[in-house]
Amino acid sequence: MEEIKVFCPATIANVSCGFDVLGLALESVGDEMVVRKIDEPTIRIRKIIGQELPLETDKNVAGVAGLALLEKSSCSHGFEIEIYKNIKPGSGIGSSAASSAGAVWAMNQLLDTPFSPLELVQFAMQGEKLASKVAHADNVAPAIYGGFTLVRSYAPLDIVPIHTPNELYATVVHPQIEIKTSDSRKILKTNITLEKGIQQWGNLGGLIAGLFTEDYGLIGRSLEDHIIEPIRSILIPEFEHVKKAVMEQGALGSGISGSGPSIFALSKGLETATKVAGAMKAIYAKTDLDFDVHVSKISSKGVQPITKKA
Amino acid sequence: MEEIKVFCPATIANVSCGFDVLGLALESVGDEMVVRKIDEPTIRIRKIIGQELPLETDKNVAGVAGLALLEKSSCSHGFEIEIYKNIKPGSGIGSSAASSAGAVWAMNQLLDTPFSPLELVQFAMQGEKLASKVAHADNVAPAIYGGFTLVRSYAPLDIVPIHTPNELYATVVHPQIEIKTSDSRKILKTNITLEKGIQQWGNLGGLIAGLFTEDYGLIGRSLEDHIIEPIRSILIPEFEHVKKAVMEQGALGSGISGSGPSIFALSKGLETATKVAGAMKAIYAKTDLDFDVHVSKISSKGVQPITKKA
Repeated sequence: MEEIKVFCPATIANVSCGFDVLGLALESVGDEMVVRKIDEPTIRIRKIIGQELPLETDKNVAGVAGLALLEKSSCSHGFEIEIYKNIKPGSGIGSSAASSAGAVWAMNQLLDTPFSPLELVQFAMQGEKLASKVAHADNVAPAIYGGFTLVRSYAPLDIVPIHTPNELYATVVHPQIEIKTSDSRKILKTNITLEKGIQQWGNLGGLIAGLFTEDYGLIGRSLEDHIIEPIRSILIPEFEHVKKAVMEQGALGSGISGSGPSIFALSKGLETATKVAGAMKAIYAKTDLDFDVHVSKISSKGVQPITKKA
Repeated sequence: MEEIKVFCPATIANVSCGFDVLGLALESVGDEMVVRKIDEPTIRIRKIIGQELPLETDKNVAGVAGLALLEKSSCSHGFEIEIYKNIKPGSGIGSSAASSAGAVWAMNQLLDTPFSPLELVQFAMQGEKLASKVAHADNVAPAIYGGFTLVRSYAPLDIVPIHTPNELYATVVHPQIEIKTSDSRKILKTNITLEKGIQQWGNLGGLIAGLFTEDYGLIGRSLEDHIIEPIRSILIPEFEHVKKAVMEQGALGSGISGSGPSIFALSKGLETATKVAGAMKAIYAKTDLDFDVHVSKISSKGVQPITKKA
């Protein structure tokens, strides 16, 4: 195979009580990329459609992630990459992760899969480091593994795939204000109370159990975050309105996607998720903010080849 | 039914990264109780064999738990209780919880089960409040539900049964020094770093996932506690030696049982759990401390009727 076209899913990290550890992949929101072999032993970003992003390999997250893979590979050639962006950078649904994960997943396919998913996550994390100064894995892990993934540990890196119930849908609203990940990190406190810590790991335990047992009620009850959300949500206009409105429409729960400004809600079934989208739209339509709303099943797959001609 | 004899399992609370939320029940370590109906609408502790414990109903954990049930019940009679203690009070394997849980579970049977397991936990928590000033649920929940249980939340009380892999065994050593739960609580810090919190909920998520998927390796990797164990283990002689020795024997991991002084290790299979017991014995045999060692399967059941005559 000389060339591959792939779908690179948007992802939600910091899923409520799972701050810094739990992420999920969306089935129908994401970018596309074409990756093909070239003779020179390097990575070239051939074009980027849909967003203004750097074409220089060492300034582009897909380029940096690709170089990390190439360095560990024994192959004597290189790759060129075309990126078709649908995910807006800075939206909080893993724009950089989609590009980093997509690039290394596609390259691995063209090389006949010498690398494990865990290794691909490690390469893609280099892209994340370029994007936000921290080599975090909570977006690239679900982008590569699909479904819900838990980053149990960074040293050593330990990624745990979590069972994803079949009827689980995400609704995401992106109010178009800019919050930089590095800024939203700065406002967090270094210390938390032990009491809130216990609440948080109790909820994360409940959420993981709810996902494995497909207990939607338990999933909903566990979608609580008393540590990060109260601080970061101040930066997101209409956050409290949205939280209240989505519950009135039957959502299981909601929270900040990544470091914001997107807000996600989880629902059982497409019908509820669509109603939730309506509630989100109604709220932001009354503001002067531009916004996007996405409804998507939680994918059980990560980056995927696109077989039919686009 | 006028009378019932029950087995009341010992339990391990604060299972490593699951401080204050995760507990488990042992299959072959526990007390026995006989509970029978009496005409007077009260609870009477008829006798206690094996330990010196108060016979006054309002000073006995089983009595207080029983009164809590009786108060919510419509029955016009009462119960008397005989307790055959095998679990040493203050050992850290749920001695008071076994009595509280056993009493209310047995009473519920004699009343034709008007109360749910969750309600039984709430009654039994009153016994825990008498024993340690805090109405905690992390021992009584596994004592009643069996297996691993997660206390996701206290307000409202939300108990989540967690799948228990079939080959999971616990080895517990009880070095006979006295640590009061209230004292071991006092030495904990009120605040923790966010970084350690993230580590802890990552590990708890991994442990819950490992239990559901019966991934013994993941269970082992997740049995880490960087918050409570470093502080409380100072009170337990030979703690670090034991931790090291049980891993050399093939244990999955280990930690403080409850608030100590008992130390537990989890293993895959009886053979490893027995080797682990040998390592624990060898360490304390060199000290001048008295000690007990127990090896038990993790029970999938909580309090159980004893049908054959003892």
